[in-house]
Order: sequence, then C-alpha cells, then structure tokens
Amino acid sequence: MPAIITLTTDFGGKDAFAASMKGVILKTNPQTQIIDISNEINPQDIWEAAYTLRSAYSHFPKGTVHLAVVDPGVGSGRRPIIVVTESYYFVGPDNGLFTLIYQEAERIRVHHITSTHYYLPNPGPTFHGRDIFAPVAGWLSKGIASANFGDEITDYVKMNIPATKITPNSIEGHIVHIDRFGNIITNITYKEIQLLSPEGVDLGATSVSFAGKSIKGLKKFYAEAAPGEPGAIINSSGALEIFIYKQNARTSLSAKRGEIVRLAVSR
Amino acid sequence: MPAIITLTTDFGGKDAFAASMKGVILKTNPQTQIIDISNEINPQDIWEAAYTLRSAYSHFPKGTVHLAVVDPGVGSGRRPIIVVTESYYFVGPDNGLFTLIYQEAERIRVHHITSTHYYLPNPGPTFHGRDIFAPVAGWLSKGIASANFGDEITDYVKMNIPATKITPNSIEGHIVHIDRFGNIITNITYKEIQLLSPEGVDLGATSVSFAGKSIKGLKKFYAEAAPGEPGAIINSSGALEIFIYKQNARTSLSAKRGEIVRLAVSR
Amino acid sequence: MPAIITLTTDFGGKDAFAASMKGVILKTNPQTQIIDISNEINPQDIWEAAYTLRSAYSHFPKGTVHLAVVDPGVGSGRRPIIVVTESYYFVGPDNGLFTLIYQEAERIRVHHITSTHYYLPNPGPTFHGRDIFAPVAGWLSKGIASANFGDEITDYVKMNIPATKITPNSIEGHIVHIDRFGNIITNITYKEIQLLSPEGVDLGATSVSFAGKSIKGLKKFYAEAAPGEPGAIINSSGALEIFIYKQNARTSLSAKRGEIVRLAVSR
Repeated sequence: MPAIITLTTDFGGKDAFAASMKGVILKTNPQTQIIDISNEINPQDIWEAAYTLRSAYSHFPKGTVHLAVVDPGVGSGRRPIIVVTESYYFVGPDNGLFTLIYQEAERIRVHHITSTHYYLPNPGPTFHGRDIFAPVAGWLSKGIASANFGDEITDYVKMNIPATKITPNSIEGHIVHIDRFGNIITNITYKEIQLLSPEGVDLGATSVSFAGKSIKGLKKFYAEAAPGEPGAIINSSGALEIFIYKQNARTSLSAKRGEIVRLAVSR
Repeated sequence: MPAIITLTTDFGGKDAFAASMKGVILKTNPQTQIIDISNEINPQDIWEAAYTLRSAYSHFPKGTVHLAVVDPGVGSGRRPIIVVTESYYFVGPDNGLFTLIYQEAERIRVHHITSTHYYLPNPGPTFHGRDIFAPVAGWLSKGIASANFGDEITDYVKMNIPATKITPNSIEGHIVHIDRFGNIITNITYKEIQLLSPEGVDLGATSVSFAGKSIKGLKKFYAEAAPGEPGAIINSSGALEIFIYKQNARTSLSAKRGEIVRLAVSR
Repeated sequence: MPAIITLTTDFGGKDAFAASMKGVILKTNPQTQIIDISNEINPQDIWEAAYTLRSAYSHFPKGTVHLAVVDPGVGSGRRPIIVVTESYYFVGPDNGLFTLIYQEAERIRVHHITSTHYYLPNPGPTFHGRDIFAPVAGWLSKGIASANFGDEITDYVKMNIPATKITPNSIEGHIVHIDRFGNIITNITYKEIQLLSPEGVDLGATSVSFAGKSIKGLKKFYAEAAPGEPGAIINSSGALEIFIYKQNARTSLSAKRGEIVRLAVSR
C-alpha cells in the first residue's frame, strides 16, 4: 500500500517549487502517492491555506501525511512542527496554518521538529518546504514515529478566528472564502441554524441578508434558484453559502472575504 | 497493476473540490493512480468538458475509469450514470457530458447509478462529485461490475451538436474549441476533406476562410507558416485548425467558439 | 519500485495535451508515477522551460526520466533526443531546452531518437509530445537502453546564454526569471560573490543596484527585510534575488526578464 502525502502551498503550478518538494519526498520514500490539495493558495495567505486544507483533509485515508507550506516567516524563529491527530499527520510551519485542525481534532499532539538529521543536508533559510518539511513528510510516511522528530510542545500558534454572534432569532457571521464559481461561503453553519430551531429547521422561514439584499428561504440545490437571483444554501461542508445559479455571485454582489452576513429565522 | 482513474471537472486547481474527490477515491481504493485530464473546464461548460475528455480518453490504458463532473444540475432530477464502452468506464452526470463518447464508441452500455450503498454515507445535494461519483469510480476501479450500480437505461441525454455542411467543393463548419496557444479548432475533419477529394487531398488546392481572411493551402507543421500570417493545418486530433505561428490566433483574429469557418477545394 | 517520469511543458493545465501524454506513458508503462514539474511554461518559451527544469530535476531520485516539451519547431527538421547524465534521462526536442543540463552534468551522452518502432503508430507532425516523446519516455522508464533509440550525436543545440561580467569589486548580471511571488531572480550566484571575497563574504558590505535603487546588504531570510523596502538575498538555488517582503517586487519595480542587475562589494 503506497503512503499518501498531500500538498497545500502557495507555490503555484508554474514555478518548480512544488515539484522540487515532490522530488525530495520521492527520494526519501519512493513508495509515495503525492496528491495536490492546492498549490494555488494566494501568496502568504495563511487563512486561505488553513481553510482549504480543512475542506479536504478528512476525505483522505487514515495515515495520510498532510504537508502544508504557506510560510512568510521562513528562516526566522518560527518553528517547524508535526501535528498528530487520531487519523492524520500534518507537517508545516507553526504560524497558525493548522488552527482549524486544532479545533476539529479530538486528540492533538504537536511536535517541534528539531532532529536535523531528517532534513536535507545543509538546509537553507529560504525554502524549508523543500529542505525540511518535504523530507520530514517523507520519513513520517515511512513510519518513523513523530516523537523522533522532536519534543512535544503545547504553546503552538493559533490564529484568532472571529466567531459568529448568535441571538435567539439570528446569526451574524462573515465571509470566510469565495470559491472558483464565485460562491460566497460564510462561517455560519447548519449546526448553528439547528440550534435556533430545536423543533427542526424550516428552510422557508430563514432569510439571509448581505450587501443590501435580503434572500428569502434556503435552497436545497443550486438549480432550484431563479436565474440571476441570489440564493442561499447549506453547502457540502455544512456552511451557509450565497450563490447565483450559473453566475458568479462574487462579481455580481462585489463580495469580499471578511464582510458581514446575517441570517434570521422568522416564526 | 494500479487502477487508473482520470478527472475532468470544472472545479479548478485552487479550491479543494478536486482534492476531496481524490481523497474519497483513495479511501475507496488505495491502489489507484489518479490523473487529471483537466480541472480547469470553464464553470458549467458541459461542451468544453465533453470536448476535452474526448481529446484524451482514448490514450489511456484499457480499463481506465474516466470520471467527469461538470454538473450544474447537481441535486436536481438529473441521473448519475456509468457509461461502459469496449475499453473504458465513464462516470458522471447524465447531462450530455458523454455525447462524444456515445458517437465514437462501438458498443455502449449506460447504467443509471441507484445503488446508494456505493455512495458516501449521507450524500448531500450539492457535491455529487465527492459524495457519489468519486466513490462509484473507486468501486468500479476495484472490479465491481457496472450492472451492480443500477439498471441499464437507453434514454440517456445527448447534446445537440451542429454538423458540418458538405457540398462537392466545400465544407462549412464552426469553431469548437480554442486552445491555450490561441489555436482555433474547428469541427471540420480530415476525413471529410478526403471525401471531397477521393483522388487524394491536395493540400495546396485547399483554402480556408474565416473572419474575412482567406488562408491558401494547408500547412503540414506549424513552423512552415510565415510569421504573423494565419495558417491552416490538420491538428493532432485530425481536425482543421487555424493558427498563427508563435502567436495567439484567437487574439489576432478575435475568434470565438461557434463562429463559422469555411473550407473550399479548388480543382 | 515504480518508475518516475516528470513533465515540463507549455501545454497548460486546461487543455488535454499533458493528459494525453500521461495516458500514452501509462499505456507504455503502467508502473509509472508521473509528476508535473510545470505545464504552465509560457507558450514557446524555451528558456523558461530550461530554467524551470534546472530548478527541480536534481531533487528527484536517480533514474528519473525528465520529459520536457516546449517545441515550436515540431514537425520540422529539429531532432528528437535523449540526454543521459550520470543520474537522469531527459527526453525532448533538440532546440536548446537542455542547455543548462549540459552545463551542470559531469557526463553527457546525447542520442538522436530515430527508432520509430518506439513511437506511437502513425505519429503526426504537430504533437510529438504525445506521439514520440511520451512513448519514448515510457520505454526508457521500462529499462530499454538509450542506445537502442538511435545514434549518439555531439552537435546538439545549445542556447546562447549571456554570462555575468566580473570585476574585482563587482558583478554585472541580469534577470533570468521572476517567480510567482514576484521575486526577481538573477544569474549572479553566491559562488561568484565568494570569488570576490576570498576572505569570506560580508553580507553587510554588499550592495545591489537595480531600477535606480541601491539595496544595501544581503538578507539571510525574507522576514528580515523592512516592510515595503526592496531586499536582496541568496535564494534556495544559490542565486542573487531581489524581493519585497510580502509584496510583489516585479510589480513594484516594473522588472522584466533580461534587465541588468549590478552587485558591488565595498571593502
């Protein structure tokens, strides 16, 4: 059974950065299948990497090593780490990139990588993705125990993520991501909507307001919405999403990450 | 021998959609090699997906599972299907995406996927690529017979594709695709040109008209054309193509998919 | 152990060109792991392909077959070749694409591919990536000796690459690449800087001038630079690079490939 290593980086697909990491992984463990989660994270956008990794990691087989490198502090004091959960390994810089993993995992153990004999020889200060993280991921995928890479730490870095504000009849959240289709994704979850309606969610009694528009009701699937009209839906990650069927809601509504979205339940 | 599964989607390389599908495939069948045909199909552009899949599928080994998801009707009534030809399996929505496969294959069998135990648990209505098509492709690649997934159907959806108009001395076709290089690809084929010239095609006696320009003769290879001048050629798929050597013919000629191209043979 | 084949092409990720090559490779040798170095080389940009391939190739395991196709002369007289070094195979057109490999490798043997029985049947004149180079790479990865593909040649094509100009106190080079982050990479190397300072390089005594700006000193890592101020650094390939921390130096400095950069050492 080949080991699986995934990549989430801001290195892009045009330059050779991601490929150099893959070469190093295969030199360390030739029996690896490498899958890109995304190499197109916006440069230095740690949040986007955290969000994208969270969307995909749990769909991979138990034991997968998730390598993530968005690393503006490369070469400075920030620590290289391994995060071990009940099902996966994560390797990357200690800059908050794994915050959503810390939130979701039941058990977490974080190791500060200090065993330099697992690095490439003479690692430089500008490309730890290639010189440190890729070989460490390769060795992990060969079965080296995470404790061998360095001591456990508890003061690992977490991003400060604004929470939703919940009242008995409403939830105020914000836009956390806009996808390729222009769909506007919020941090308001179906679980939170259920909390407002313990008797069962009435999709028709829900309204969403954003950008001066009020969207009545939640759709079940995209094609249900009227052409050209903004719709709201619970997406495949269980989050509230605003879309326009077969159009780009981001463009039409001039949406930006961070903007406020409100959901209200009428009774 | 690892199974091979290809992906043709409009999910892009930036978001985690395609990676989530790959994770699900590998959870279902870890012995799979996954190859992207393209995840950069224009959003909801079923024709482009059909065209791109057709360009590549036959180059893969017999038994390859071609997974294709451009699916504006996800969650609505459109059916999930498996198409079985003499050499390949195709998995995706029944929305016309496989029309060119239906045209080219000698034998076709289409199954409506209804065996929900091959789905992910609790599939949602917005991402069948991950919840239905990926696991079905994984199970197919493990050798589960296509009949196990659901009954055969014969009323599967075909796109309406305008044909070329052929007279004794000319063929009228249209632009079906414009590639990365700006090359303008038509639905006029070398086979059709041969029909006009049973005595053998005389490349020099052929002229192509498009966008108010007349292009005399067909080139054999790109570097044969004069710099800056539009040339016509039979491309690697056997189709008539208009190009400008080392330039972007799309930009120079303001070409758009669907526009008419005429080929004439003088005697 | 699966064979490894890498791809460096200008075919892009949207069209099916690269995927068709991968299908042909897997038909020839199903036990192959295929890794993209880049398919996003600018169309017909042989230098960029040479540079990108050079950045990545040496990180792959010994025996890797590096397939590179940027091929404006496809179908004309330019020869298809295999380059054999002490550790790798390279397959592609004889148009200068492998110039940097010729410079770096200790031993080089170049074969003109003429054994047409290793091609796809009926190869066309427009897509040798699929019809010639992919199957040749597949056969090479199965262990067919390079001599079987054709005779050795010594008059293979090399690009003319302008060298740096070195005086006792300065080096004049030029921009060879600008990466995804907007970092401006030159052909001035750390080895050359060391030659100017046999007593040891004093990073603080070095200054770089470009675009009317003088950058004092070399940084060790990116985060060391003041926000918004251009910095200079030795990058992960040992080359002098100009950057602006968390910004795009290309945009800010209007940099273009080929422009002159000067480094001076004060004593």
